[in-house]
Amino acid sequence: MSRKYVYRFDEGNKGMRSLLGGKGANLAEMKSMGLPVPPGFTITTEACNVYQVGANMPEGLEEESANALEGLEKETGKKFGDERNPLLVSVRSGAAVSMPGMMDTVLNLGLNDSTMEGMARLTGNRRFALDCYRRFIQMFGNVVLGMEHAEFERVLAMNKERAGVVQDQQMDDAALEGVIRDYKTLVRNVTGSDFPQDPKTQLMMAVKAVFESWNNQRAIVYRKVNKIPDDLGTAVNIQSMVFGNMGDDCATGVVFTRNPSTGVAELYGEYLTNAQGEDVVAGIRTPRPIAEMARVMPETHKQLVETCGLLESHYRDVQDIEFTVEKGRLYMLQTRSAKRTATAAVRAAVDMVSEGKITREEALMRIEPDHIVKILHRGIDPSAKLDVLATGLPASPGAATGKAVFDSDRAEALGQDGENIILVRPETTPDDMPGVVFSQGILTSRGGMTCHAAIVARGMGKPCVVGCDALKIDLNERCLYVGDKIVREGDVISIDGATGNIYIGRVPVIDPQLSAEFKNLLDWADRARRLGVQANADTPRDARKAREFGAQGIGLCRTEHMFMQADRLPIVQEMILAETEEERRAALDKLLPIQQRDFEQILEAMRGYPVTIRLLDPPLHEFLPNVEDLVVQLTEARMRGATGPDIERKRELLKKARALSESNPMLGFRGCRLGVVYPEIYEMQARAIFQATAVLIGRGIDDVKPEVMIPLVGHHLELRPLKELVERVADEVRRGTGIQFPCIVGTMIEVPRAALTADEIARHAEFFSFGTNDLTQTTFGFSRDDAEAKFLHIYVQKKILGDNPFAVIDESGVGKLIETAVKLGRSVRSGLIIGICGEHGGDPRSIDFCHRAGLDYVSSSPFRVPIARLAAAQAAIRNRTA
Amino acid sequence: MSRKYVYRFDEGNKGMRSLLGGKGANLAEMKSMGLPVPPGFTITTEACNVYQVGANMPEGLEEESANALEGLEKETGKKFGDERNPLLVSVRSGAAVSMPGMMDTVLNLGLNDSTMEGMARLTGNRRFALDCYRRFIQMFGNVVLGMEHAEFERVLAMNKERAGVVQDQQMDDAALEGVIRDYKTLVRNVTGSDFPQDPKTQLMMAVKAVFESWNNQRAIVYRKVNKIPDDLGTAVNIQSMVFGNMGDDCATGVVFTRNPSTGVAELYGEYLTNAQGEDVVAGIRTPRPIAEMARVMPETHKQLVETCGLLESHYRDVQDIEFTVEKGRLYMLQTRSAKRTATAAVRAAVDMVSEGKITREEALMRIEPDHIVKILHRGIDPSAKLDVLATGLPASPGAATGKAVFDSDRAEALGQDGENIILVRPETTPDDMPGVVFSQGILTSRGGMTCHAAIVARGMGKPCVVGCDALKIDLNERCLYVGDKIVREGDVISIDGATGNIYIGRVPVIDPQLSAEFKNLLDWADRARRLGVQANADTPRDARKAREFGAQGIGLCRTEHMFMQADRLPIVQEMILAETEEERRAALDKLLPIQQRDFEQILEAMRGYPVTIRLLDPPLHEFLPNVEDLVVQLTEARMRGATGPDIERKRELLKKARALSESNPMLGFRGCRLGVVYPEIYEMQARAIFQATAVLIGRGIDDVKPEVMIPLVGHHLELRPLKELVERVADEVRRGTGIQFPCIVGTMIEVPRAALTADEIARHAEFFSFGTNDLTQTTFGFSRDDAEAKFLHIYVQKKILGDNPFAVIDESGVGKLIETAVKLGRSVRSGLIIGICGEHGGDPRSIDFCHRAGLDYVSSSPFRVPIARLAAAQAAIRNRTA
Repeated sequence: MSRKYVYRFDEGNKGMRSLLGGKGANLAEMKSMGLPVPPGFTITTEACNVYQVGANMPEGLEEESANALEGLEKETGKKFGDERNPLLVSVRSGAAVSMPGMMDTVLNLGLNDSTMEGMARLTGNRRFALDCYRRFIQMFGNVVLGMEHAEFERVLAMNKERAGVVQDQQMDDAALEGVIRDYKTLVRNVTGSDFPQDPKTQLMMAVKAVFESWNNQRAIVYRKVNKIPDDLGTAVNIQSMVFGNMGDDCATGVVFTRNPSTGVAELYGEYLTNAQGEDVVAGIRTPRPIAEMARVMPETHKQLVETCGLLESHYRDVQDIEFTVEKGRLYMLQTRSAKRTATAAVRAAVDMVSEGKITREEALMRIEPDHIVKILHRGIDPSAKLDVLATGLPASPGAATGKAVFDSDRAEALGQDGENIILVRPETTPDDMPGVVFSQGILTSRGGMTCHAAIVARGMGKPCVVGCDALKIDLNERCLYVGDKIVREGDVISIDGATGNIYIGRVPVIDPQLSAEFKNLLDWADRARRLGVQANADTPRDARKAREFGAQGIGLCRTEHMFMQADRLPIVQEMILAETEEERRAALDKLLPIQQRDFEQILEAMRGYPVTIRLLDPPLHEFLPNVEDLVVQLTEARMRGATGPDIERKRELLKKARALSESNPMLGFRGCRLGVVYPEIYEMQARAIFQATAVLIGRGIDDVKPEVMIPLVGHHLELRPLKELVERVADEVRRGTGIQFPCIVGTMIEVPRAALTADEIARHAEFFSFGTNDLTQTTFGFSRDDAEAKFLHIYVQKKILGDNPFAVIDESGVGKLIETAVKLGRSVRSGLIIGICGEHGGDPRSIDFCHRAGLDYVSSSPFRVPIARLAAAQAAIRNRTA
Repeated sequence: MSRKYVYRFDEGNKGMRSLLGGKGANLAEMKSMGLPVPPGFTITTEACNVYQVGANMPEGLEEESANALEGLEKETGKKFGDERNPLLVSVRSGAAVSMPGMMDTVLNLGLNDSTMEGMARLTGNRRFALDCYRRFIQMFGNVVLGMEHAEFERVLAMNKERAGVVQDQQMDDAALEGVIRDYKTLVRNVTGSDFPQDPKTQLMMAVKAVFESWNNQRAIVYRKVNKIPDDLGTAVNIQSMVFGNMGDDCATGVVFTRNPSTGVAELYGEYLTNAQGEDVVAGIRTPRPIAEMARVMPETHKQLVETCGLLESHYRDVQDIEFTVEKGRLYMLQTRSAKRTATAAVRAAVDMVSEGKITREEALMRIEPDHIVKILHRGIDPSAKLDVLATGLPASPGAATGKAVFDSDRAEALGQDGENIILVRPETTPDDMPGVVFSQGILTSRGGMTCHAAIVARGMGKPCVVGCDALKIDLNERCLYVGDKIVREGDVISIDGATGNIYIGRVPVIDPQLSAEFKNLLDWADRARRLGVQANADTPRDARKAREFGAQGIGLCRTEHMFMQADRLPIVQEMILAETEEERRAALDKLLPIQQRDFEQILEAMRGYPVTIRLLDPPLHEFLPNVEDLVVQLTEARMRGATGPDIERKRELLKKARALSESNPMLGFRGCRLGVVYPEIYEMQARAIFQATAVLIGRGIDDVKPEVMIPLVGHHLELRPLKELVERVADEVRRGTGIQFPCIVGTMIEVPRAALTADEIARHAEFFSFGTNDLTQTTFGFSRDDAEAKFLHIYVQKKILGDNPFAVIDESGVGKLIETAVKLGRSVRSGLIIGICGEHGGDPRSIDFCHRAGLDYVSSSPFRVPIARLAAAQAAIRNRTA
């Protein structure tokens, strides 16, 4: 109707990103700041969304555009299609959320046979005008007319051969005219129509092409990976062209206001003289560091430095800026929040706080918690003596190891099969997105720190090395050479995105260390958050790591891993094979001192903080050999006629394994059900816990805080007798040792019935801990093992589920049960301590939910503890009531 | 404190059963009716409960008892321990809920060396007095002193041998004196004390023994089986003795006011002249029909008939009455509601309505719905030509087949292993309870229609044949003889409790027919109930049976059973093995006409009523051969070096079976998840349903009402596309055939998430059906297959769970979800039709819950439809708001 689809740059501002897209809003903002922005206007995302419905241009858009174009003509004094003083424009996509390189762009639009001549006259540089026209036909043909890039390349190569030259730059006017003639013939042959000569027609076709690029394959993949909604749409920016490729007083470049890899406060970027922006981003020519510009064009460099400082202060964030220098004059083409590594994000945020540019809370909110998991991943051991194969640019830190794969499709296929992959390419393009998603790391022989591969890898937190000239990549043979060394597809290589080093084979890695800035940030987080953060740890080593990362206790110590160790397994099997309680107790007596030592070590490692020990949970058959293996072995023995005690034992094991085997072990004889049927098992474990406690207190370590957690309770009458049993054992140990200690017994809430009857359960439970893995399984009726392999990915793909509910808590289903349990539990026991120990305890969005649901703490894997601390702080800030 | 523990019979009434027990309350009531009840008093159940706490006699009880005893002495003119005119009493247990024979009784208490002589003088029958004393010592020794029955029997046998006699009755005074002497010696040797001579000591010891018998093993088992709370306690009735064994003008008997097997309005029972009550109940002598009494003692018989009529009218229910005739004088010893077969219960209730004795609602409430399942069990085909091995008394109707087992322990053990058992005993005693529980039927060679076995079997609705004299049972050899035929333990036999016939081997059975009275009762039920009753039926045969039994539709028609039939399975496997959608569709095309025919038949069979068809639900691997079998076969083939196409096919099947195999199939790739991933399967099924509908309408059968049910929905976005698919297919069929029909799509609510988000789901679902089997599995986190075998029985045994939640709905957990779903669902779609199709739909207590939860209908197995109709009526009456 009367919707406004077109905004001049001077009508917008940075607050209008959802309407104008990020690029459009920021161009408008820069305009309003008085910065040198080439004039232009923006077609809104709404226009795009209207277009998507029926593939028709919105009513009135053409007219509005024409008006805006008229304005542009007035402002620039140039005229669209005017041979004497032609206006040329760029047509660029720009969504509300940055999707670098995913959608289409057309430059030099407005050129045709006559304006080309006008340009030649105006610039006094016919070769330049011919080259622009040649590039424009190719770009328009590819982007707007949907023709193959390779077809144009073939025609170009043919013409170069005919002209007897090798490089594009070597072509003279005549050669370029030949190229243009052949390009136009090609367009006519492929599309059945002449190359459009009317600039307004060109413009509307280009706008339509940008709209359509919203739904190209790579954009869809990118949105899926980055969880960007499909209905945002893209804006289209139409801007009068400036040229970085008009001579040596021209340049184009990309700068970051701080180093996007380390966060150090230095202008960081690259530029190319006599080039268009595409040349930098595509990684075709390796650009020069921005610092060199100070020497080559000192004035412009100074102006650039000032402008960058202004933009960072104005936006209160690190900026990623595109600029062009046309005949010595600086133009700003784009500014946006810079994608950066987690390390850089932390460093920049903390520095900006000390520079007084942002507050601590802003700093905390600025870090993507899921992103910093990358800082916490292991790096290559610096003390290891390794042969470096080659060294490239360190574009995104972290170590990655995998099979070298030389194309995106194969990387995707193998990656989906669970292989670790390093994607190796001369350079990457947006078409490589699917392969990047499924790779552990990316390695390119061309491109700089701001090339496509580097930007995407940093955005996804994947290790990346770019611009490694020493590599000779042979895509046909699917191998790479470095001198006389060869790496074939499928050979394992490693890359170190922090140093740029490349290695053949695997490399030794070490645990990450927290930087001073990161510790600083986490300190602020600790002060901001309400939720406690604990860790899931089964070993003293994990417990120590968790403490180092800031865990304030162990929210889940699983005892079954202790049962699985090689020296214990035979005793555990003895216990399982026992026919009588007496035999079972004899085996348990052997396990008691072993478990007690485990607990002594872990309690000591976490002294001062609670250690929540879960009693035996998995079904007993998990401790026996696989039924199918035994069946094969016994069938073989039978066919061979073999007998003997070994066969007999196998037969006995098979018998027991069969007796214990279950249709649905997840819902079977496990958790407290074991404790109810074989109380002697839980009795042994309780004894080991309390004897360990007494031993430590006896040794003067009196600040140990064991808590006993009963798993899989669904009915309060399951919990009551087991709690009584644990309390009885505690009493016995107190009496036996003469040492006093508290006995705290709680339960996991991990089946719906426990949540629904949490009031009854809270009468006996001194704490609750949500086991959200199992709770998600039972609430959905999803077996995690089966669902993820068989249908869950299809559910996410078809958008039946927004997220994998095992990764992010399902608030409307599982979350409802959690809220119910919290309410009912506290209605009976007001001080009830409530936590979460499922994997969701380390997921930022789930942590935000836990904060809102009123939990007391989250417990995550040790390596996710810093993430949980940050996420908990963000949750507190985000949900602060005004 | 000042609690009153003792009530004289004239202080009580029938309303006081929880305090005085059933027997005590009814004795008091009969007393107040002016009936001839021997005087006595009752010690309350409260006294028993106080005793149970610390095994000490409640304070004041002894004194109160002494006072009551004094009153008794005054009333009878006899005196406790008085040699000249001794008072003898019976001491009988009597709980609020009848537990026949489970607890202890002592008769003739008050006898000692001197009162025995007094009795001899008073009766002029020294032999009688000696026999009483002998019996008393034995009974007291056994019940109160805890001595073995067999020890007394040994002494008795010894004395009989010494006296040269075979029968007890043949012993003369001297022989009996010898027995008494030896009994007393035995008591001293075993207990270390003399047999107590003081009657008051005897009395308090006996009372204590009765209290303790509340917790003997068989009473505990009985309470568990009959779901009687453990804390009710038993009262103790102390009543002056009357003697049915003083001569031929004495008798004792048991009568029912109506035939307890058929319900026919006739005085029905048995009596023995010159005997004590125990002789009738224990089945040691086979008693005479009560009708004979009219000839032998006409006056007393007439009085008995009148009294019985009076009692039935007074109690408004069929009575089970014990009486004794002492020297021509009738005494009433007990009256209670008669245990009866379901057939009898129905007949009596309906008759009593026509007799104007009770209302229709009373009649409806009087029938135990779970009990009438027995009427609906199959009987032996009367047209079959069978060799009858022998015929006994038809004590409890129904046909049963199983292995003959000759002792209770073994019957229990084998029954627990899932064997079908017929327990064969000369007679049963309360100690046989566990064996009875685990048997399909009971067969005895002794006893009458009112013997222990008969009463218990009727109470439990198990087929029972008693008093089959033709059987010679050899317990040592574990076999029975009938003439020259022999049945050894483990041989299969059948019994027909309706005719008393016994057969070797299995027998052909037929479906039950509903009696006119039963139809009458169910008509009343239909008028009283609010809930609709439908049936779960997968075949036209089941559908017809369900209709016959009154089902008003099919609440669940499972399509997978159709897939399993031998002619379809290869096609189904073809579909599963398909590598592409095209191959899959080719197989589905073959299934389409087959499924369509299935649906035509079933829709026609249920015309006029809705047929809810559930689309494919089970995981696909259920249609493939077992993995382990394939592994064994392939291992064998490998060892043999065998090859060939058969081996190849097996290898292929194994590969697919492995690919489809799941850790927890119950939570795996099944239900609507199949439909989401392979929509073509559901498409075929929907097409088969609507084409069947169109064909029937085309044939003029226009009242068919298919409804499509999508299983296992947990998220509304699963349902939406599948509903759209079904609607699209319906449209296609309408267009293709030109026939109009409605398309109704709903869903099962069977995972907690569906219940928790029922408002979202109801936006798409036109009906809900609770799949409470799966909902119970997921709410508890119980795999039914695993839980029932591995721990659920222990949970019920330890009273963690009151009932198996797969049998009776768990109101506080699963029920909460159901209530939530009903509320949320109707909040969005006010007319939403809601039913239940899990097995709980046929369970009376669960039906009561469904009524209260506001469901629209229940759906049960066809044979439980009458039960559901009755239970639904009872629920409506019971929950009627005043």
